[in-house]
Amino acid sequence: MVPHLVTALTGPINELEQRILDSMPAIERWFRLEWMEHTPPFYCSVDVRNAGFKLAPVDTNLFPVAWQNLTPAMLPLAVQAAMAAIEKICPEARNLLIVPQNHTQNTFYLSNLAQLRRVFHMAGLNVRIGSINPAIKKSTTIELLHGEAITLEPVIRTKGRIGVKDFDPCTILLNNDLSAGVPGILEDLHEQYLLPPLHAGWSTRHNSTHFKCYEEVAKRFGKLIGVDAWLINPLFDRCGSIDFSTDDGMQQLTRGVDVLLAKIKKKYKEYGIKEKPFVVVKADNRSNGMGIMTVRDSKELAVLQKTAPELSGPQDIILQEGVLTHERMHDAVAEPVVYLMDRYVVGGFYRVHAQRNIDENLNAPGARYVPLAFAESTHLPQPGVRPGASAPNRFYMYGVIARLAMLAASYELEATDPEAENYA
Amino acid sequence: MVPHLVTALTGPINELEQRILDSMPAIERWFRLEWMEHTPPFYCSVDVRNAGFKLAPVDTNLFPVAWQNLTPAMLPLAVQAAMAAIEKICPEARNLLIVPQNHTQNTFYLSNLAQLRRVFHMAGLNVRIGSINPAIKKSTTIELLHGEAITLEPVIRTKGRIGVKDFDPCTILLNNDLSAGVPGILEDLHEQYLLPPLHAGWSTRHNSTHFKCYEEVAKRFGKLIGVDAWLINPLFDRCGSIDFSTDDGMQQLTRGVDVLLAKIKKKYKEYGIKEKPFVVVKADNRSNGMGIMTVRDSKELAVLQKTAPELSGPQDIILQEGVLTHERMHDAVAEPVVYLMDRYVVGGFYRVHAQRNIDENLNAPGARYVPLAFAESTHLPQPGVRPGASAPNRFYMYGVIARLAMLAASYELEATDPEAENYA
Repeated sequence: MVPHLVTALTGPINELEQRILDSMPAIERWFRLEWMEHTPPFYCSVDVRNAGFKLAPVDTNLFPVAWQNLTPAMLPLAVQAAMAAIEKICPEARNLLIVPQNHTQNTFYLSNLAQLRRVFHMAGLNVRIGSINPAIKKSTTIELLHGEAITLEPVIRTKGRIGVKDFDPCTILLNNDLSAGVPGILEDLHEQYLLPPLHAGWSTRHNSTHFKCYEEVAKRFGKLIGVDAWLINPLFDRCGSIDFSTDDGMQQLTRGVDVLLAKIKKKYKEYGIKEKPFVVVKADNRSNGMGIMTVRDSKELAVLQKTAPELSGPQDIILQEGVLTHERMHDAVAEPVVYLMDRYVVGGFYRVHAQRNIDENLNAPGARYVPLAFAESTHLPQPGVRPGASAPNRFYMYGVIARLAMLAASYELEATDPEAENYA
Repeated sequence: MVPHLVTALTGPINELEQRILDSMPAIERWFRLEWMEHTPPFYCSVDVRNAGFKLAPVDTNLFPVAWQNLTPAMLPLAVQAAMAAIEKICPEARNLLIVPQNHTQNTFYLSNLAQLRRVFHMAGLNVRIGSINPAIKKSTTIELLHGEAITLEPVIRTKGRIGVKDFDPCTILLNNDLSAGVPGILEDLHEQYLLPPLHAGWSTRHNSTHFKCYEEVAKRFGKLIGVDAWLINPLFDRCGSIDFSTDDGMQQLTRGVDVLLAKIKKKYKEYGIKEKPFVVVKADNRSNGMGIMTVRDSKELAVLQKTAPELSGPQDIILQEGVLTHERMHDAVAEPVVYLMDRYVVGGFYRVHAQRNIDENLNAPGARYVPLAFAESTHLPQPGVRPGASAPNRFYMYGVIARLAMLAASYELEATDPEAENYA
């Protein structure tokens, strides 16, 4: 079940693993106290990259998909976490409506919906799937593998509520990242619990806000366990608004990349790291459709200018320290993806991409998913085992990093809550 | 992993299974609402017996032992439930002291302690084991299998608190059923959380109080899902104080047994059950050392009179409808034992006894324990599978019955709380 870990078995990452393992009671207590003050996002998946010398979350998804990749052995943890989450939010809940993405043909995505439906049904809710896809005009059933089927029903809007025919939910679970903006049909649902809230959508979120919050979390965590926060925190620069079609814009970008690369080089030198540093250039806000670019030298940026005409006008850009992944499965580059529900790590898998390099984004067409025994592993570290030699200890560490990212998302959602002033 | 279930595959138990499965969302919601009003015992194990036509809890243990029989696959659920429990009771907790039974040689029991220590350590606590055995005068380490060891440390009492050397816990976990009475060293610990409370001990508990509470729970549950509560509730009679050495006492007992047997026969007739009814005679309060006796006819009671001289004076007796177990593993009689922590089913196993009959108590020397895939199973019922044919569905049903017993224990602890008037 456990993949061959080819992560470097010596060096800073193993010290980090040892430190995290030794500090386990303090870490768990710290999380407990944080969750007293901050509400976890309802669910979340975190892409983690392990460079051997550094470990960091690179993407925190508040509308996690691909739940179908969780193995049956992991499901009970998800069900139990779902029970805990529902109990806190709405113990009297009977009916849950899942609002999915608009895919109707993508069977991977539909299997993801079937898995979510299973988890919440097992947790004791009646679950229906309400599509906001205008093409879904009537109840539509799509057959999946293993005799499973998904029925998409058109969402019906009434004042302050949504539902589907003969089904009035008290809670709406969004599995649609709203990157195309918030549709009117989801606005002003004052009579229902909408989870996660609309401002968790990519039309509102900014990478820079998330990573600013993560930086704060990582610093406090570093202090708690006595390690340099850089070991778990990618440096970044909120480059601001850049117009790729202008020389001014490109100069600003080049300067930003050079400054960030210099900072990374300094850190690499401090730790005696021989790898070539790189920077990732991405949109601060995801909804503009701009891709993720890996830059090892600011000279490579010229490529961006060529693609600039596709992007209209100035773009909000974030530059982020790239984190290599040194994990591999059968020669393919791999990165762990950790799944969380409420405050609990409930599972995970490896995203594996045979055609990508260790410094490239793996979340791209061609990726495969390898289920992992995360469920057993993250909760069952083995004290006393040599760092790097124990998969459960490594997965415990991944679970901790993923929870730090989830905590950062919680800070982020508080900071960006449009109704926050109402509570103040 | 799943045992061969030889439970009758037709008849009332399969209808019950179907009804429970169909009502899953309603059942889970009902539990959620109950746990809003009532605090679950911290942890608990429930012996369940399945007669094919009837399913009932026969023992609800508030100081569960034998945790070592839970498989590694079940541990993550226990850890996650322990996290949830601690978070509610004392999120700022750092240190947990386990107060065990006084065994120092029983390696099974010591392995149980090692497992509990593991669960709470993984949940993020520093755990030590503080013995109240007067023979433990200094820190004593006992080696177990697989390189594990248990260190028993003498409990140190200070005003309002207990601890062990250099270790001041905020929470005390009792794993000692206090059947010999509450030792003074555990009284008046007003500055610490004592879990479960002292009145959960067998020196205070009465079987009749528990089963009275269970009867109430079973009736409400029966109404919820539309089944006769008798299908999950053993009839009982709190016989009162009986002096076995007197003819008056024996007459009273005989009358009680006859009346109860007649009631059971009536129910058997109603359901067309051909089995021979029987009654279990046991002490209402466990601490007097009286055994459990199976009585098929009141004439068999004469045996009790012979053993009477061993029991001094009048005894509080409870008569309970015996529940057969029709489950077997490899010809040995078996009964499931379900483990719960906080409000969650976290695992279970089969207790198997090759030398006992289907109407006898299996919790006796010679019993073996067969771990079961309860963890995966109780949370993962399979809707649409024929009743009796799906182990996960059967285990889900067992988990429901065990939770009913736990809920009854919660009612019981409220009713017997010596400090209850302080809150009124």
